Amino acid sequence: MVVSTINGTSPLSHSNGTTIPLSTFSRNSFVNVEKGDPVAFRPYWEKVRDECTVEIKCDEWMSYLGDTNNLCWYMVPQMRDAILRLHNVVGNAVTKDKFLVLGTGSSQIYQALLYALSPSESSHRPINVVAAAPYYSEYKDATDILQSKLFQWTGDAALYDKDEPYIEVVTSPNNPDGTLRVPVVNSGVEGKIIYDLAYYWPQYTPITDQLDHDVMVFTFSKCTGHAGSRIGWAFVKDIEVAKKMIRFVQLNSIGVSRESQIRAAKMIGVICDGYKNLKSIESDHLFFDYSKRLMKERWEKFKGAIEKSKVFTLTKYPTSYCHFNKDLSEQYPAFAWLKCLEGIKDGESYLEKLKIRTRGGGRFGVDAKYVRVSMIGTEDEFIELCTRLSNAKRE
Amino acid sequence: MVVSTINGTSPLSHSNGTTIPLSTFSRNSFVNVEKGDPVAFRPYWEKVRDECTVEIKCDEWMSYLGDTNNLCWYMVPQMRDAILRLHNVVGNAVTKDKFLVLGTGSSQIYQALLYALSPSESSHRPINVVAAAPYYSEYKDATDILQSKLFQWTGDAALYDKDEPYIEVVTSPNNPDGTLRVPVVNSGVEGKIIYDLAYYWPQYTPITDQLDHDVMVFTFSKCTGHAGSRIGWAFVKDIEVAKKMIRFVQLNSIGVSRESQIRAAKMIGVICDGYKNLKSIESDHLFFDYSKRLMKERWEKFKGAIEKSKVFTLTKYPTSYCHFNKDLSEQYPAFAWLKCLEGIKDGESYLEKLKIRTRGGGRFGVDAKYVRVSMIGTEDEFIELCTRLSNAKRE
Repeated sequence: MVVSTINGTSPLSHSNGTTIPLSTFSRNSFVNVEKGDPVAFRPYWEKVRDECTVEIKCDEWMSYLGDTNNLCWYMVPQMRDAILRLHNVVGNAVTKDKFLVLGTGSSQIYQALLYALSPSESSHRPINVVAAAPYYSEYKDATDILQSKLFQWTGDAALYDKDEPYIEVVTSPNNPDGTLRVPVVNSGVEGKIIYDLAYYWPQYTPITDQLDHDVMVFTFSKCTGHAGSRIGWAFVKDIEVAKKMIRFVQLNSIGVSRESQIRAAKMIGVICDGYKNLKSIESDHLFFDYSKRLMKERWEKFKGAIEKSKVFTLTKYPTSYCHFNKDLSEQYPAFAWLKCLEGIKDGESYLEKLKIRTRGGGRFGVDAKYVRVSMIGTEDEFIELCTRLSNAKRE
Repeated sequence: MVVSTINGTSPLSHSNGTTIPLSTFSRNSFVNVEKGDPVAFRPYWEKVRDECTVEIKCDEWMSYLGDTNNLCWYMVPQMRDAILRLHNVVGNAVTKDKFLVLGTGSSQIYQALLYALSPSESSHRPINVVAAAPYYSEYKDATDILQSKLFQWTGDAALYDKDEPYIEVVTSPNNPDGTLRVPVVNSGVEGKIIYDLAYYWPQYTPITDQLDHDVMVFTFSKCTGHAGSRIGWAFVKDIEVAKKMIRFVQLNSIGVSRESQIRAAKMIGVICDGYKNLKSIESDHLFFDYSKRLMKERWEKFKGAIEKSKVFTLTKYPTSYCHFNKDLSEQYPAFAWLKCLEGIKDGESYLEKLKIRTRGGGRFGVDAKYVRVSMIGTEDEFIELCTRLSNAKRE
């Protein structure tokens, strides 16, 4: 698979993986908002660079073992402490009396959970894995890639009517459409629920509840924007589920990068310190304040462009009280979910003609008149996206 | 799974994951040589610490993408260059005209290869995966954990006589017994071969050939001793195999930790720079010279202990010319493979009574009179191991 460059042209790449945004897009270059690469928050991290550089010596962190006193033996104490502290600061999840399992991104956590929640007797039929459409486009392939006899992708949870065990994945806020979700399967059989809470952070949505589910999945990528670190985690209630997950991670990758853990712990520490020293710090140096303001500004600009175009409609989101920000707030999802007005049957193809690369509804289990658009790319890309969208006309 | 501390007691752990070796083992504490945690080389890395510290800023390496111009899009150019340079310096593998695929340790690479080498049509029966016994104890579980319909563990390659497609894993030098291996399946059907070359580095074995196989797997863990970084890689000849592997890594973990890549690249650079500046550097600062000397000293001491005990015999290894060191050399495997003399049926239980924790032959597909003993643990642990072994008496 040859992946095109992030802007569809050749941005100037620095040796450290930062990209200088092109100040102008040529008419022929694509605006690529197909993926959800969360680089929008980089300016924040540039601001706090001096307090947040990590140094790792070559003789440190050599062992396979991270913490031999923890069930999750490859997780270093700093990582565990940082994750617990972050949830304590944000108040989005109850962590008490739960087991924390670390993974190489939430993708690995998802795989580990499918394994851990499936019946282990091979006499069983594969357990059905469902999610309400529109659902995250990678669930299907991630579930079925190895054609496991333990589990199988069964599609839209809203249509599920089998009298068989199932796992329902509840993504809330949802990828792609940003809506807040609850389980939808109405079956006589008891199901297992995976709550994928990748976007349940204050920049995307009001924190309305401290969630307390049996299985809750989070990822560092969408929280702070550090997708390259591949850090994800789950809180699980049942120790047997936690043990099976850890066994999976052991066989799959013998644990999780120690360097990523150290760096993630450091960055989470900087975020939490900010909120601890609230009075002595500028709000621009408070991560969730900064990132929420950014998302809000983008959404306002984006809504303006959509209105101007008269080609799409947008999902409407409720206003709720955010316990973290202590204010009433709208949602500002990481993706916009556009519905084309009548006359346009295939949104992805339509936008492709406008040199905007998106991901079409078909990938999310719904009609092709829907498309998903990333709201968390570079500023330059986002501005160009709005310009092109506002010029869109019905053919 | 509660994992006991590395020495079976509570070593003093520093916050940076280094462990102060206990200077004395109490009679009741276990010497744990069951795992292959490669911490033996830490003293080398302490020596070069000043030239080999990595600093990562918080605004670097945020993207999912590592190098959009590379098929393996999550691999940063520094990592690719370092791996190619290392093989060029050591001369253990032909890298030209092959695709380099990076993984979260060689465990993930192994999984990716099973997926990539299996027929993708679901009408096929699972392809048989075999390895000559004694084989690496994790292959079976790593193959069968998800009960894939694509592949299945079939056991000892030497006994394989099915008229069906197969994948043979050839580990050379072999884990557990250190022998040099070639494929052994003699079947009418054409098989696919995975060469697992985790231990084909100069500290363990003379580099006799620049290997040029279609699928060759390496790991950073056993090369430099940095197991915590979870960096593994494969060279594959067939672009379709490479593409499928990359697709697997994408769905499994959306790439490989950027922090680990940056640090691994830096450390490989320090090793290679040493051999570039041969004349101006002390041999103690040359990584493979240092680590080979350490392995040689350990093996001599270990052989003395085994001889004294009169309870075990050891595998014999040939002497060969090493193109890297330009001398005749023996092998100094990362594990010793002990065979108990008559009268002891279960080596693992026997050694457990001597407070030595090992991994028994059954885990490697052979008789329980064999045991595997790690030769790459801490110095303190190794010395205690030799003391206890030399005191072993036949009951």
